[in-house]
Amino acid sequence: MRLVTKALILQKARPFLAANSNPESAELVLFGWPFDGTCSFRAGTRFGPGAIREASEVLESYCPVARRDLEDVRFADVGDLPVPPGDLQTSLDMAYRMATAIRSAGQIPAVLGGEHTLSLPLIRAAHEADPNLAVIHFDAHFDLRNQYLGVETCHATVLRRVSDFIQPSHILHIGQRSGIKEEFDRSELLGNYCPASAKPEDICQWVGDRPIYVTVDLDVLDPSVLPGTGTPEPGGVSFATLQGWLQGLSSCRWRGWDVVELSPDYDRTQVSSIVAAKVTRTMIFTSTSQTA
Amino acid sequence: MRLVTKALILQKARPFLAANSNPESAELVLFGWPFDGTCSFRAGTRFGPGAIREASEVLESYCPVARRDLEDVRFADVGDLPVPPGDLQTSLDMAYRMATAIRSAGQIPAVLGGEHTLSLPLIRAAHEADPNLAVIHFDAHFDLRNQYLGVETCHATVLRRVSDFIQPSHILHIGQRSGIKEEFDRSELLGNYCPASAKPEDICQWVGDRPIYVTVDLDVLDPSVLPGTGTPEPGGVSFATLQGWLQGLSSCRWRGWDVVELSPDYDRTQVSSIVAAKVTRTMIFTSTSQTA
Amino acid sequence: MRLVTKALILQKARPFLAANSNPESAELVLFGWPFDGTCSFRAGTRFGPGAIREASEVLESYCPVARRDLEDVRFADVGDLPVPPGDLQTSLDMAYRMATAIRSAGQIPAVLGGEHTLSLPLIRAAHEADPNLAVIHFDAHFDLRNQYLGVETCHATVLRRVSDFIQPSHILHIGQRSGIKEEFDRSELLGNYCPASAKPEDICQWVGDRPIYVTVDLDVLDPSVLPGTGTPEPGGVSFATLQGWLQGLSSCRWRGWDVVELSPDYDRTQVSSIVAAKVTRTMIFTSTSQTA
Amino acid sequence: MRLVTKALILQKARPFLAANSNPESAELVLFGWPFDGTCSFRAGTRFGPGAIREASEVLESYCPVARRDLEDVRFADVGDLPVPPGDLQTSLDMAYRMATAIRSAGQIPAVLGGEHTLSLPLIRAAHEADPNLAVIHFDAHFDLRNQYLGVETCHATVLRRVSDFIQPSHILHIGQRSGIKEEFDRSELLGNYCPASAKPEDICQWVGDRPIYVTVDLDVLDPSVLPGTGTPEPGGVSFATLQGWLQGLSSCRWRGWDVVELSPDYDRTQVSSIVAAKVTRTMIFTSTSQTA
Amino acid sequence: MRLVTKALILQKARPFLAANSNPESAELVLFGWPFDGTCSFRAGTRFGPGAIREASEVLESYCPVARRDLEDVRFADVGDLPVPPGDLQTSLDMAYRMATAIRSAGQIPAVLGGEHTLSLPLIRAAHEADPNLAVIHFDAHFDLRNQYLGVETCHATVLRRVSDFIQPSHILHIGQRSGIKEEFDRSELLGNYCPASAKPEDICQWVGDRPIYVTVDLDVLDPSVLPGTGTPEPGGVSFATLQGWLQGLSSCRWRGWDVVELSPDYDRTQVSSIVAAKVTRTMIFTSTSQTA
Amino acid sequence: MRLVTKALILQKARPFLAANSNPESAELVLFGWPFDGTCSFRAGTRFGPGAIREASEVLESYCPVARRDLEDVRFADVGDLPVPPGDLQTSLDMAYRMATAIRSAGQIPAVLGGEHTLSLPLIRAAHEADPNLAVIHFDAHFDLRNQYLGVETCHATVLRRVSDFIQPSHILHIGQRSGIKEEFDRSELLGNYCPASAKPEDICQWVGDRPIYVTVDLDVLDPSVLPGTGTPEPGGVSFATLQGWLQGLSSCRWRGWDVVELSPDYDRTQVSSIVAAKVTRTMIFTSTSQTA
Repeated sequence: MRLVTKALILQKARPFLAANSNPESAELVLFGWPFDGTCSFRAGTRFGPGAIREASEVLESYCPVARRDLEDVRFADVGDLPVPPGDLQTSLDMAYRMATAIRSAGQIPAVLGGEHTLSLPLIRAAHEADPNLAVIHFDAHFDLRNQYLGVETCHATVLRRVSDFIQPSHILHIGQRSGIKEEFDRSELLGNYCPASAKPEDICQWVGDRPIYVTVDLDVLDPSVLPGTGTPEPGGVSFATLQGWLQGLSSCRWRGWDVVELSPDYDRTQVSSIVAAKVTRTMIFTSTSQTA
Repeated sequence: MRLVTKALILQKARPFLAANSNPESAELVLFGWPFDGTCSFRAGTRFGPGAIREASEVLESYCPVARRDLEDVRFADVGDLPVPPGDLQTSLDMAYRMATAIRSAGQIPAVLGGEHTLSLPLIRAAHEADPNLAVIHFDAHFDLRNQYLGVETCHATVLRRVSDFIQPSHILHIGQRSGIKEEFDRSELLGNYCPASAKPEDICQWVGDRPIYVTVDLDVLDPSVLPGTGTPEPGGVSFATLQGWLQGLSSCRWRGWDVVELSPDYDRTQVSSIVAAKVTRTMIFTSTSQTA
Repeated sequence: MRLVTKALILQKARPFLAANSNPESAELVLFGWPFDGTCSFRAGTRFGPGAIREASEVLESYCPVARRDLEDVRFADVGDLPVPPGDLQTSLDMAYRMATAIRSAGQIPAVLGGEHTLSLPLIRAAHEADPNLAVIHFDAHFDLRNQYLGVETCHATVLRRVSDFIQPSHILHIGQRSGIKEEFDRSELLGNYCPASAKPEDICQWVGDRPIYVTVDLDVLDPSVLPGTGTPEPGGVSFATLQGWLQGLSSCRWRGWDVVELSPDYDRTQVSSIVAAKVTRTMIFTSTSQTA
Repeated sequence: MRLVTKALILQKARPFLAANSNPESAELVLFGWPFDGTCSFRAGTRFGPGAIREASEVLESYCPVARRDLEDVRFADVGDLPVPPGDLQTSLDMAYRMATAIRSAGQIPAVLGGEHTLSLPLIRAAHEADPNLAVIHFDAHFDLRNQYLGVETCHATVLRRVSDFIQPSHILHIGQRSGIKEEFDRSELLGNYCPASAKPEDICQWVGDRPIYVTVDLDVLDPSVLPGTGTPEPGGVSFATLQGWLQGLSSCRWRGWDVVELSPDYDRTQVSSIVAAKVTRTMIFTSTSQTA
Repeated sequence: MRLVTKALILQKARPFLAANSNPESAELVLFGWPFDGTCSFRAGTRFGPGAIREASEVLESYCPVARRDLEDVRFADVGDLPVPPGDLQTSLDMAYRMATAIRSAGQIPAVLGGEHTLSLPLIRAAHEADPNLAVIHFDAHFDLRNQYLGVETCHATVLRRVSDFIQPSHILHIGQRSGIKEEFDRSELLGNYCPASAKPEDICQWVGDRPIYVTVDLDVLDPSVLPGTGTPEPGGVSFATLQGWLQGLSSCRWRGWDVVELSPDYDRTQVSSIVAAKVTRTMIFTSTSQTA
Repeated sequence: MRLVTKALILQKARPFLAANSNPESAELVLFGWPFDGTCSFRAGTRFGPGAIREASEVLESYCPVARRDLEDVRFADVGDLPVPPGDLQTSLDMAYRMATAIRSAGQIPAVLGGEHTLSLPLIRAAHEADPNLAVIHFDAHFDLRNQYLGVETCHATVLRRVSDFIQPSHILHIGQRSGIKEEFDRSELLGNYCPASAKPEDICQWVGDRPIYVTVDLDVLDPSVLPGTGTPEPGGVSFATLQGWLQGLSSCRWRGWDVVELSPDYDRTQVSSIVAAKVTRTMIFTSTSQTA
């Protein structure tokens, strides 16, 4: 990771709760990608990484569901990438280079968004290292359109762009409840779509022994649980359901993950940010080894 | 509907998502009634129709539950009635005339409130055309008091006023969890009250083959789902439950409906408005024919 | 006042800061009129009286400008009139009867609104007792239209209705900056309009030795000072300017006053309510005798 | 209670809905404790008592779950204790003296917080009168640390301080989902911890025929239900679940209770306050005799 | 304008207050540019055009300062350009083509932003038609950096990009109070910088008889007046000062103008939007001929 | 300062804009004191230091009024003191020890509050080093009561406690507009009170050549400028006025200063925090030498 951090001067930030590991010796390296230039409705996800870190201070480092403590996980929080406002391509490139460097060092890249487009370079980096990668996509939307308002690469098309280099059948969609007819029809045809009633075991079975990349668009949660997101969609799942799904993946081999689409300023109670921080805490546990 | 629209100059407004049909050829005609003069606690439902339309843009036109697309429904949104502030009687009369005109043209009137008093003229118009009309009333409250703070016709007495011309046994109350003792006792005696645990089949069975009018006071939903309403009452149902109840009525013969009591300014996350818009989208599907 | 309070059972409320006098022995009697049924844009002034009382607790009872202490003023706060939601006429009648009773007892009625229509019965009551009454009207708007959206008596026509029984030349408009052309033209013709640059002495000179009624529509203040009102109009005066105008009237003979159009829920900082409470405190001093 | 009220001049406040009983003849005496000096994260619970009372006006006095009406309960609301800002010890002493006086008169003390530290003197007073007292603790957290940020008595250690004089096995923890490892381990060892899936019958069985004290830290509810609290913790229970738990205790012998940690300013929809008021209404029913 | 509107399908929107003119016969054509992709701090200016139009309904069509009525101005509001989210270049091109088309028809283009970058294509279009164009730039910032966070064309460099084709001495900066040392030094050297104390006459004198383009970055106003903007800077001017400056330009020959950087969601009182609408109303008067 | 920082482990925080100096070589050392335990009305000033630092990022490091750049000032931001919640005495002691250590090293201590009680130990430390210290107190209130709600040391009595060891005539009160009669009378008698109309020269003249300590309670500003404070008081000064007063003191010998009473959560526009940050930036310039 050393060369990259020389090129990409990271912005100083308060680190995520209990993230005290040295970047070199960490099992997992966390960084932020504060970009929201292509959001179609409400923006503000640029403030997501900072809000998640700040809210993490409200949580304990111990998790009674995982029965583990962050203090026992070797993870580093290296700050935010200095993404140039409005320049999507450069911003995506930065994320790609950083993720690749982390992967090359045998570490797990974990990224706080920012808009969902972020997943594109991260999945690409993971796929290059693991060609049989399985992608798990928690979201209220499919993001499978070929273009949106004339734009080919944006937060509404990101999984379609991913499917340009990963077979759609290797991508599992979970929690979708909004989309165009084609998105639902195609996913049902491919059998890679789990509605809200999906059980953790179903997801595990689908994974098998493949390495996984997990992307969580926070709007998979019901807007009552997390109103602070760009396109809230009624009818989503509870925090406990999402936590159960993630916990069920704790025995899989994680190659990377992201948590995206928190737009903190739209929820002045700060609860959305706390929920996002707790999702992040859960994923730090599920993606790392139990014997730290 | 032609004569009425000449008399009632409608206020310009951005139409509901995908409402592109000509008023003359529509199967369903939507209009707004931005009146909140008699609210007992928090006002602001006058901004409901505008907020629902604006929030509808966040939704897709396709619904995976109904497996239909708004683009395939012939419905028009003709704007808001120009109700005079504070003049309840004139405002109710306008709604009555408009609903009657739409009914006369063989179309379904669908109205966005505004306060719940709106249902009175709408049900009256529907009942005059269909004397065996069944009324389905989703609400946290019964609204069956004979008067409230000395007022006989207001949003807290509207179903009582309806029962002045429709037998109480033809009105089904669903979701009530607040009221005076007499309201609960009478409804249990009449057997026309369904608590939150009601199943869609129970409601369908109660309807039989009668034509129906459906009024949705949005406070039937839990305040966590929809805080933006005048008198939030803890302990309500989820969005999925309400959607299930409505979906269960999709084979019934709808004669009219309203969605009332959204007070958007009390929920700055805009989620309440989005929920109300999705309820409205659901009702457009359930009230219209499947083969557009 | 005794007969009236028997007829009008007042709603319990926390009294205004330092209002400990007995209603019978008070020089000034304060009450609230929580009605907003005819508001044309944003409602919520029904919560004005309660918000002003609650905010008054933030203030001291001593005023360094008046160099007096509320503890030395004999004034009572008798609570809110039980106005029926949506019934303007009954609500206005209640205010009229209460004001008349207070006047009959030789006391000064002072009222917290609620919408501006309130001034109509209060000025009528004051005028019946003092036919040479001068009315001073602080407001961003003239409220001189003959009707508004078809309504003759509402918060946008209230001064026009007053001018049905008081000669327009006996009404002084101060601070207006929004209106239709006719309102500005007529007022300039009559010479009874003071722009924001008016000096306290000018106002005193206009009054002469006539008894006065003062109505303060809080939107006379700039929206930066008081955003929590129904129709904020940029370009208004500062708090100090309004306080100076009112202080300049402290040697006049006050016959009654009202403070109207605070809509507290639209300013979550609570500053609007505190400003309204300080305006109220100022008027309690300026309208009562210095030697309590 | 007479001597105490002479010593502790209570602050005037609007009473809780339907609280019209004379303090001397009441079965239950309610008072507020507006203190939040030791909060570790977000403060503002000092505004809890006032907000609960104000929100109670939105509710009906009749409860369809309890099938009782507040009008039939003899309870008094005597206002808030005049706690000195920042002086915890004096504030705790005031609560202790007031609770003891109420207990001595054979009445049930019921207190609105304020921060959770309040429970310490209240449980002490109850325990002195009933040495076999059982304590039921609804909360997202255990509050069992020995100290927090160097402080021994604060809202994060209150149950530990209680366990200095009551055996831990006499304290039942319900709903906890956040804490340090030791808190979870010890509680599981002692078998006095019920997760969210606990059934009302389980709680009743644990109580047996012991007299009970019940403390409800409102953050036991999910933040979607009640965001207005100091340390919101995702993954909590619904309002219906908490109501069911409390209702299940209605046949127990209550010796006192508190509702704490509402921080109303962090939820501008006012829903958190309404939820807290409904919890309070439920506890007034469950703690008093059915034949008023 | 006809060819352009065929190419650029404008998004439907409620028009600005009293904008009823036919686009073909209008003297001034208003459109929105809802783009905010390069904002460096808070985004959300994409919602500016819609919020300004909605807030305009609160205003009267008559202005007592201009002594004119919008009803007497021939202006059209043709809606928003369909800018693709995140694609700055395409979005700028759309604005350029639209402005050029309007100019070619002898009409004045007036645009509601959106972020300040918008001014670049608009000034270019105006300059191409009038090579001796003078640009007047109201703003808290100079926007004269050569690049910002590595980006050459963004809202923090827009006037620098303008000065690539217009001599700096032809640009007058008014109201700046934040910047890097070089920006202040250069402007003072060039003598094209007016602090807050500038008088309308000074500005007129600087203009002489040149045609003008006026860009108003709303953060020139003090944040107390308009908090809803991306980078609020304390120490700005009042609404009256800005109105005076603009009014002073009413005898100049206007070639185009824009109002930018309203971020409405950051001011929930809606006052910022009302202020922006009143600034817009003022500019409609000052830029059009008095004899409509 | 070394010994102290060993004893007081400072909490990590993002530093104030451009604060890159080493603590050992700095001319000025900034730290935060996040305590609000004794606030009488609205709490939340504990979040002041963090909010000021975060908001500072919106500002430029260059100030056109001071004509200096923060980059040229040797100042360090060492983070927040780990004050124990609710323990005033320990918290004050920590501030005293830290300030004394900084003073001993010949540096200027500058502190971000937190509640105003903070000034007590800071002024004590400064006075011990400079017995002829002059204190300048910007505030809406005098804070000269002997006790408040029975408490002797709190944010409403802090200047009275200071006057226990500094002669009242050595304390200059500026901007007060609220208080009890005795406070105004005494200050006028002593001639150490400047109303809002005070000129910078008057203040300088009062200082003479004495070393100064400056405390800024941010509520000296008008609530329109800074609503995010505990006890907003209408009628305050503008940002420009306060900046002018401070700038006028730039030739004095500063011995320490504090900026207190920002309660950021009460102003969701973030403007209050930005204003506080700009006041802080101003004071960094005025208190340090021009030739860095």
